[in-house]
Amino acid sequence: MPHFLAVDAGGTSSRATVLTADGTCVGYGTAGGGNPVSAGPEQAATAVVSATKQALRGADLQPDQLISGVAGMAGVSVITGDDWLAGAFRSAGIPIRPVIHPDLLAIFASGSLSLDGYAMVAGTGAIAVRVRGGRIDAVADGLGWLIGDEGSGFWIGQQVVRAATAALDGRGPQTALSALVLQELGIDDDPTPDNLGRPLGLRNTVDAIYHLRPVDLARFAPLAFAVPGDRVATSIIRHAQSALATSLTAVVQPAVVGPLILGGSVLVHQPDLTTPLPQVLTDAGHPADLRPVPDGLPGAAVLALREAGVAVTAQVQAQIAASLPQARAAAGA
Amino acid sequence: MPHFLAVDAGGTSSRATVLTADGTCVGYGTAGGGNPVSAGPEQAATAVVSATKQALRGADLQPDQLISGVAGMAGVSVITGDDWLAGAFRSAGIPIRPVIHPDLLAIFASGSLSLDGYAMVAGTGAIAVRVRGGRIDAVADGLGWLIGDEGSGFWIGQQVVRAATAALDGRGPQTALSALVLQELGIDDDPTPDNLGRPLGLRNTVDAIYHLRPVDLARFAPLAFAVPGDRVATSIIRHAQSALATSLTAVVQPAVVGPLILGGSVLVHQPDLTTPLPQVLTDAGHPADLRPVPDGLPGAAVLALREAGVAVTAQVQAQIAASLPQARAAAGA
Repeated sequence: MPHFLAVDAGGTSSRATVLTADGTCVGYGTAGGGNPVSAGPEQAATAVVSATKQALRGADLQPDQLISGVAGMAGVSVITGDDWLAGAFRSAGIPIRPVIHPDLLAIFASGSLSLDGYAMVAGTGAIAVRVRGGRIDAVADGLGWLIGDEGSGFWIGQQVVRAATAALDGRGPQTALSALVLQELGIDDDPTPDNLGRPLGLRNTVDAIYHLRPVDLARFAPLAFAVPGDRVATSIIRHAQSALATSLTAVVQPAVVGPLILGGSVLVHQPDLTTPLPQVLTDAGHPADLRPVPDGLPGAAVLALREAGVAVTAQVQAQIAASLPQARAAAGA
Repeated sequence: MPHFLAVDAGGTSSRATVLTADGTCVGYGTAGGGNPVSAGPEQAATAVVSATKQALRGADLQPDQLISGVAGMAGVSVITGDDWLAGAFRSAGIPIRPVIHPDLLAIFASGSLSLDGYAMVAGTGAIAVRVRGGRIDAVADGLGWLIGDEGSGFWIGQQVVRAATAALDGRGPQTALSALVLQELGIDDDPTPDNLGRPLGLRNTVDAIYHLRPVDLARFAPLAFAVPGDRVATSIIRHAQSALATSLTAVVQPAVVGPLILGGSVLVHQPDLTTPLPQVLTDAGHPADLRPVPDGLPGAAVLALREAGVAVTAQVQAQIAASLPQARAAAGA
């Protein structure tokens, strides 16, 4: 029986499953970050191969029982070609050349079998795409923490820390976020002035923030949702909602009809953020069909079968959804 | 005749002068960055000692002809003590222990002999201070590029790049800043879509931005002032003005009367930014006395004499102002 490989490679982990043409996932593997931009192609390829081998072992399959495969990957727009991944598979004795698709397409396919529609992901970063004919047709934002990713976990977390410290600095309105940020960092709200007259609590907070990597500011994003009624926090959430709606508006077209698939930890766990998104769809004449999905691996499995010429029906999709958790559990992951 | 050392140590350069009690600067030296936080204490001390030696040589003086000295330095609030600098002077055979003052105090003294007043610096960063009794009494902002420095060169430059790329991305209004940012980076405005549908001009811009250090975004700040009438650029300038006014408001008190000394490349070269500042002073009952100063070295000279017990009169101040450029010219700097 032919088997197919599906991989969802992200910044923090890579996950692989091996499945049959009816959508039955028979093996599962996981490894470290597989984003070829942030981790580098070599390390990303190593992670993807490692997750693949683990999935094969779990399914008690030999590498040559794989027919083909698909890998959903972030950052592929800035990596040319796929030799870096194909070479790693060849070296590992796995006789397939995985087709690389953008991770956004895998997210979309996790939520819909349609060939047209939209996907938006907000985790540490934020991006919206239009899908047309089973391919990414347009993109908005995803420009990274320094100049884009508006409404993302990083963006919200940075606004939270800005507002919390501005209040302690006497420049911004009082907000419950100040106490929460200090608590998150384990810092006392010590009002004793340092030699410039800056409260020690603020000075120690600033020092702690600059010892983090910038993207780590995403860890403060949940605080914005932890103080309902706080006007400063509410304003941050409103701006994030508006930024996400703007990104979606930039890709929505009346002629491209389909659901909006939502992914990423921030968008999936903070449904507040999606409040203005249905209106963007209905303004374009589309149904307000929003579907959050936990990850892109089921979609990568759909793409893997489709790439191999298998007609992926609702029944096949249901079989992927039912068998993937079992394969994961069997792998102890 | 006793001589005194004055140093202005900044992130990109350290400058030193040797002067007599009547304010005559007889030597001048310059060296690399002397900010103990960004360059590290060891490298900062080496730079300050190097500039000092050069100033002594130019004045044809031996180290033991120095009586005392003052160094104006950024970042001193996060460095404890002055042993790191005193030790470097001892090792170099210069028998003084320079007194370290915040660079903001030196900027203030460059513009005023008053013991009370205000200083605001906006270069790559932005900070406002209240001076009372010749000491820094309160501070606002100066929290760095990641969470503060609102209205600074970095802040403006980041907004410029955000707006320029958002326009190319279809998320923001059209602006002349897009063409200027691409031109600054030497990138063609190529509309050809990449595999995600993103125009190549935008994609190449994003790649180029992430090859810079974040603080290098300050180089795009002048673009905001280069397109008068552009609504997006005007809005960025308005927000910067407002942020700077908010920082000044946080430190101004009716009881502390004195001028506002302005420093830093952005504030000195873009007088537009200071538009709302006079109102902040008059709202507190103060005269709208704003004085831009080119740098903190004349002020460090004032502080050096004052620290040595010399009464710094307007005549002494004028002598510093007249002789410092001569000493600098004699040093070929």
